[in-house]
Amino acid sequence: MKVCNYHEVEGKEEIPGVVKRVVAGPDEGADNFVMRVFELQPNSSTPLHSHNWEHEIFVLAGYGAIKGADGDATLIQGDVVFVPANEAHCLYNTGEEIFRFICVIPMVGHR
Amino acid sequence: MKVCNYHEVEGKEEIPGVVKRVVAGPDEGADNFVMRVFELQPNSSTPLHSHNWEHEIFVLAGYGAIKGADGDATLIQGDVVFVPANEAHCLYNTGEEIFRFICVIPMVGHR
Repeated sequence: MKVCNYHEVEGKEEIPGVVKRVVAGPDEGADNFVMRVFELQPNSSTPLHSHNWEHEIFVLAGYGAIKGADGDATLIQGDVVFVPANEAHCLYNTGEEIFRFICVIPMVGHR
Repeated sequence: MKVCNYHEVEGKEEIPGVVKRVVAGPDEGADNFVMRVFELQPNSSTPLHSHNWEHEIFVLAGYGAIKGADGDATLIQGDVVFVPANEAHCLYNTGEEIFRFICVIPMVGHR
């Protein structure tokens, strides 16, 4: 088994204000699904997009929201979101601190 | 999409002191992998066991440890564990408060 703290994993700022850490993926031996930790700075958002794989999201800290096909839902610590494949969505920070969440995807969505 | 707080999901005490909540699974539309939230009371442990699917674990709160093939590793908030298939393991609470973690498994392990 492999143990680390997510802080120790190098983050990648894919777009300004949005850092992704792949905490359990191919490097750890995963071959079915990938766990990532995202940190969004205040006033930051992931792009509105869709893809043919699902998300399973768990909110760790901060205040944010997700936009989906049926509108926006606010998110706080402990909230869980299931985003089905092909539903357009984005997550954004509505607070004044970091909005941090786990997002698990199947390997097909990992790049 | 579906949004809830893990608190709102009914927990099942599978063994004394160990409560499991399935927060993203078949009921939410998941068909590849399942997110569960476990809460272990002080002095509680999951059984030492192995199976032919992997775990991806994220520690949310409390103090605990995991026993694996190479010994025991302490766990605190933010720690991530990848347990490969067929490695015997158990998680246990070493603190005086609830030890809470997320554990994601492929659908084949869900029952």
